[in-house]
Amino acid sequence: MRVIRQPARTTWPELCKRATAPMKEMESLVQEVFDAVKHDGDKAILRYTSQFDGVELHDLRVSREEVEKAVQQVPEALKRAIIIAKNNIHAFHNAQKPKGIEVETMAGVRCWQTYQAIEKVGLYIPGGTAPLFSTLLMLAVPARIAGCKDIVICTPPREDGSVDPAVLYTASLCGVDTICKVGGIQAIGALTYGTESIPGVYKIFGPGNQYVTAAKNFATKLGLAIDMPAGPSELMVIADASANPEFIAADLLSQAEHGVDSQVILLTPSEELIEKVKEQLDMQLPQLPRAAIADEVLANSSAISFREREDIVDFMNAYAPEHLIINTSENVYYADNVRNAGSVFIGPLTPESAGDYASGTNHTLPTNGYAKQYSGLTLQAFMKSITFQEINATGLQSLGNTIETMAEAENLWGHKNAVSVRLQTLKNKDA
Amino acid sequence: MRVIRQPARTTWPELCKRATAPMKEMESLVQEVFDAVKHDGDKAILRYTSQFDGVELHDLRVSREEVEKAVQQVPEALKRAIIIAKNNIHAFHNAQKPKGIEVETMAGVRCWQTYQAIEKVGLYIPGGTAPLFSTLLMLAVPARIAGCKDIVICTPPREDGSVDPAVLYTASLCGVDTICKVGGIQAIGALTYGTESIPGVYKIFGPGNQYVTAAKNFATKLGLAIDMPAGPSELMVIADASANPEFIAADLLSQAEHGVDSQVILLTPSEELIEKVKEQLDMQLPQLPRAAIADEVLANSSAISFREREDIVDFMNAYAPEHLIINTSENVYYADNVRNAGSVFIGPLTPESAGDYASGTNHTLPTNGYAKQYSGLTLQAFMKSITFQEINATGLQSLGNTIETMAEAENLWGHKNAVSVRLQTLKNKDA
Repeated sequence: MRVIRQPARTTWPELCKRATAPMKEMESLVQEVFDAVKHDGDKAILRYTSQFDGVELHDLRVSREEVEKAVQQVPEALKRAIIIAKNNIHAFHNAQKPKGIEVETMAGVRCWQTYQAIEKVGLYIPGGTAPLFSTLLMLAVPARIAGCKDIVICTPPREDGSVDPAVLYTASLCGVDTICKVGGIQAIGALTYGTESIPGVYKIFGPGNQYVTAAKNFATKLGLAIDMPAGPSELMVIADASANPEFIAADLLSQAEHGVDSQVILLTPSEELIEKVKEQLDMQLPQLPRAAIADEVLANSSAISFREREDIVDFMNAYAPEHLIINTSENVYYADNVRNAGSVFIGPLTPESAGDYASGTNHTLPTNGYAKQYSGLTLQAFMKSITFQEINATGLQSLGNTIETMAEAENLWGHKNAVSVRLQTLKNKDA
Repeated sequence: MRVIRQPARTTWPELCKRATAPMKEMESLVQEVFDAVKHDGDKAILRYTSQFDGVELHDLRVSREEVEKAVQQVPEALKRAIIIAKNNIHAFHNAQKPKGIEVETMAGVRCWQTYQAIEKVGLYIPGGTAPLFSTLLMLAVPARIAGCKDIVICTPPREDGSVDPAVLYTASLCGVDTICKVGGIQAIGALTYGTESIPGVYKIFGPGNQYVTAAKNFATKLGLAIDMPAGPSELMVIADASANPEFIAADLLSQAEHGVDSQVILLTPSEELIEKVKEQLDMQLPQLPRAAIADEVLANSSAISFREREDIVDFMNAYAPEHLIINTSENVYYADNVRNAGSVFIGPLTPESAGDYASGTNHTLPTNGYAKQYSGLTLQAFMKSITFQEINATGLQSLGNTIETMAEAENLWGHKNAVSVRLQTLKNKDA
């Protein structure tokens, strides 16, 4: 870890920069795959799955038998853990149910707003070394609470053509039975256009590698919505001399093991703490199976000291971390001043991994500084609002002239006339 | 208007297609302008304003004197109308203030969610033939309620280098004093990077022509958020024999006058109504200053009859109209079945123009079928949510093993360890 002492504000923009690799130009590849999926449907999917993933499939859909078999295979302890996590995630997201509003803005002018589920949603669950059943929980639970009618899971098949049992168990637990064995660009293409086996959707959720990210961006050009822009995961810890360095080191390592492009930052008023955390890192790092990855991440990461807590707050908000741990003797001060962050973990006994898995909050969060303008995933991301209005005679008589005057000033006479013909009719009735 | 009788469901996808012009490939132009704005700041803006708009400016910011002069110039009747509209828009959007939630998902595991304003937002107000002060109301009022700290208006200057007085009056009324004389791609570039005169922002709102739309899409690649994808305006009317054909015709024309790419559709169980509406269209059309535009739109528009009201509802939801007028003897049935629409106007005395200007609802709405996955503009579009959690000893003792089990199953041992070191410390304390 680089140690940086009281950096001048002029250096902050540089310190807030993420070490993101430049996005490879892969639009032509995405275009090619999408075109093929559009025209050849399942055939194209099977071809690309063979070509890109090296897996020969006959059926793109997970069968009921496969799910039943998977449910048998998952250890009971893991099942119990997944059920507890699901219940907590359900409780937190169920509480987010938006209440519609209704306002009579003027006598006789009644306006209201309701929320509706997005009918068709796609959930992308990455494959690779770790089966991300936790991500499936984070997407499927709110999709079900929202009431999305068609929920389609896409996840890349393993080498033998199967899907990880824990993922299938979680899908089954969440009541989602449309599970497609497809990953990468072709999965996003299938969710965009629909194929014989894979239903098309209106919005695509979930993380993925750079191919999936590029494909999701491409899908937005074709009219689909996506959850949020993706980027490597990151953790900022604010800790002072009161914090246990062993915990801080463990938290930094839990983030650092994600991937070589992860980033961790420690902000502290205590230079002594930095030294103690470094000692702990040296002790804990070698014990991790993913030590090589974590080591590379730490080499690119920083511990930054500030004299004033106001500077810590300002730097934190300028950085806008995806995850923020606050472990100090002044937690209320820091928590009250969070403006830009994805998810915040407060106190010595609240590790980030609690939110990654099981406490109830969502782990799909804005990275790369996007917390300045994006929320983490909420129930409402699976819904949209619609406004309604009904105006009666009293209302139109009060408001009509206002509309006419404004429409005329914007040179939109048809807009004015839609009011005028009605006011005239009301006048004739009164006469 | 084309008349289509009881179309088969197989023909619906074709009937739901919008007559959108293919997006011109202008990414290289956008890239060029953005690069110049990034490197030359104000100088580049002034150069492009001269080149694209034919206007020579010395100062990109509207001065306090210009605003004061504009306030004098706006007729009192228009001021009164704008104030009434503002009050209604304020009332409806103020009622949308999101309440945070707090849930103790398990004993000792406290999770909560708060909302924060997006600190820096840009509001793009198109110029052209009509000064769109109504759009400024729709963007600035919720931005102020949300509490956005920096609100930046960009609007193209008129030929003489000035900005329409009604726009300046509205900005002043809404308490926004950062008004920049810049339009087109260069405006979006300035809001993206910031220049000497024009502050950069985190999210850009507002409609625009195809150049502005392309530039907003480009800005999303650079990390900015935008309100929603843009498209030509559209209106669907559901009316039956009980409706006044004069009103229906006036409503269709109010939409048709927007631009040649607008689209209007009438759905009805009554073929007699179609004939009466056509008569009314023939009578009203010639009286409009924008008759030529409206005539062209009507030529591309349809009146569709259905025998069953269920088919009307299904077709409406498949089309997902931006604006929907329901003017029937069964309004409650139709309103209750709206799944996909931007804004709905119910009853004989509720013209779309009420919502365009003054009733209180927002007129920034999803077009082109995007109502399937996007909301119209809400207060929350100017905010983002942040989740928090705090776990105490009881909580971690209950939940810790769940997190450990899940992390282990996902091969993330660092995640597990962040819990284990804490549980061990608690154990040592208890001992």
